[in-house]
Amino acid sequence: MTDDVQGLTVAVLGGTGDQGEGLASRFARAGLPVLIGSRSIDRAEKAAAELNAALGTEPAVRGLVNADAASQANLVIVAVPWEGHAATLQSLSTELAGKIVVDCVNPLGFDARGAFALPVPEGSAAEQAAALLPDSRVVAAFHHVSAVLLADPAITSFDLDVLVLGDDREATDTVQALAGLIPGMRGLYAGRLRNARQVEALTANLISINRRYKAHAGLRITDV
Amino acid sequence: MTDDVQGLTVAVLGGTGDQGEGLASRFARAGLPVLIGSRSIDRAEKAAAELNAALGTEPAVRGLVNADAASQANLVIVAVPWEGHAATLQSLSTELAGKIVVDCVNPLGFDARGAFALPVPEGSAAEQAAALLPDSRVVAAFHHVSAVLLADPAITSFDLDVLVLGDDREATDTVQALAGLIPGMRGLYAGRLRNARQVEALTANLISINRRYKAHAGLRITDV
Repeated sequence: MTDDVQGLTVAVLGGTGDQGEGLASRFARAGLPVLIGSRSIDRAEKAAAELNAALGTEPAVRGLVNADAASQANLVIVAVPWEGHAATLQSLSTELAGKIVVDCVNPLGFDARGAFALPVPEGSAAEQAAALLPDSRVVAAFHHVSAVLLADPAITSFDLDVLVLGDDREATDTVQALAGLIPGMRGLYAGRLRNARQVEALTANLISINRRYKAHAGLRITDV
Repeated sequence: MTDDVQGLTVAVLGGTGDQGEGLASRFARAGLPVLIGSRSIDRAEKAAAELNAALGTEPAVRGLVNADAASQANLVIVAVPWEGHAATLQSLSTELAGKIVVDCVNPLGFDARGAFALPVPEGSAAEQAAALLPDSRVVAAFHHVSAVLLADPAITSFDLDVLVLGDDREATDTVQALAGLIPGMRGLYAGRLRNARQVEALTANLISINRRYKAHAGLRITDV
């Protein structure tokens, strides 16, 4: 574990959803203390108990309501559904102040022709987070990680680069190191928050690729 | 050469620009007849003569004004600057009718903080092309190919997947096969035109990656 992430306690808001729970389990496996946040303490505790049973070691994951998870963590991953994104963050601005907030939310719609990017007034989910959390250090990352692969205990390595975006160099460095804790993943700096929209929206293209090729597509950046 | 692209004559509008000339040279090397289109016949003929000299075989590239290049080709690549995109296509709608039109234009702005995606009323350059060319078969592709690498004769293979987007399956199949003519490149279907915006805009992220890592970054899609 690199110095950047040693000693971090990671909270995952929306940690009972597929993406959130998958990321929580992988960070717990990497040896970090993890807090699963949910609107419901019952769901949070149930998800934490399941993850601890699956991990099979001493309890590394705790379930809390979102506000407590946010308060007790140093770094907070936002994996809530897009529909609840703005309201959840607005309600937690105090708890999230001064912390690294990693937004991995993809504002997508779905219809008969597949997935498509939804318009976001602030430009992107990450920029919405930055607007609602002026005292937090907002980073965008982990958009393209397949929830199916995260949830599959047989998958022990991921063929994937995690694009990390943000305007705070120390914060993006930390999140790159965090991504690097998951075997196979590499965290790469990929621009400022103003360029987060297309990274979020590209998830719609990966869904199209998955459909066409029956795959769980990921991205690798070449020549880096 | 696959059946899909055998016998194609490819025109490159804006073929005297870096991206256009680079693509033209690679398709000529792959054995296709290539027409370089420009607003200026002098610049088109000069670029064609340079490419033919560099290729060192019998003349495979001809220089023409954009309208003649569009008329004489089966497949037309649009590599004009974003500033001239709408006007150029509008003026060529007759010549481009019935043809596969491959848009590789990235609507980007640049300032002291780097590159960023410009807003496009139609959503993307490709959707603008489709709106202006209702009788053409518009495909989006080749956004992320480094013009520097294309222009470098020492580069004989590209570590890159070309994301191909469109609503016409036969046309996207053809463009995938076209991408596959360039050594190392693989053409992958990556969604409908409505999801082209983020693929175009992602070029801004690749530019950020290039700056940070001193690279010529490309994309590979994993698990496909």
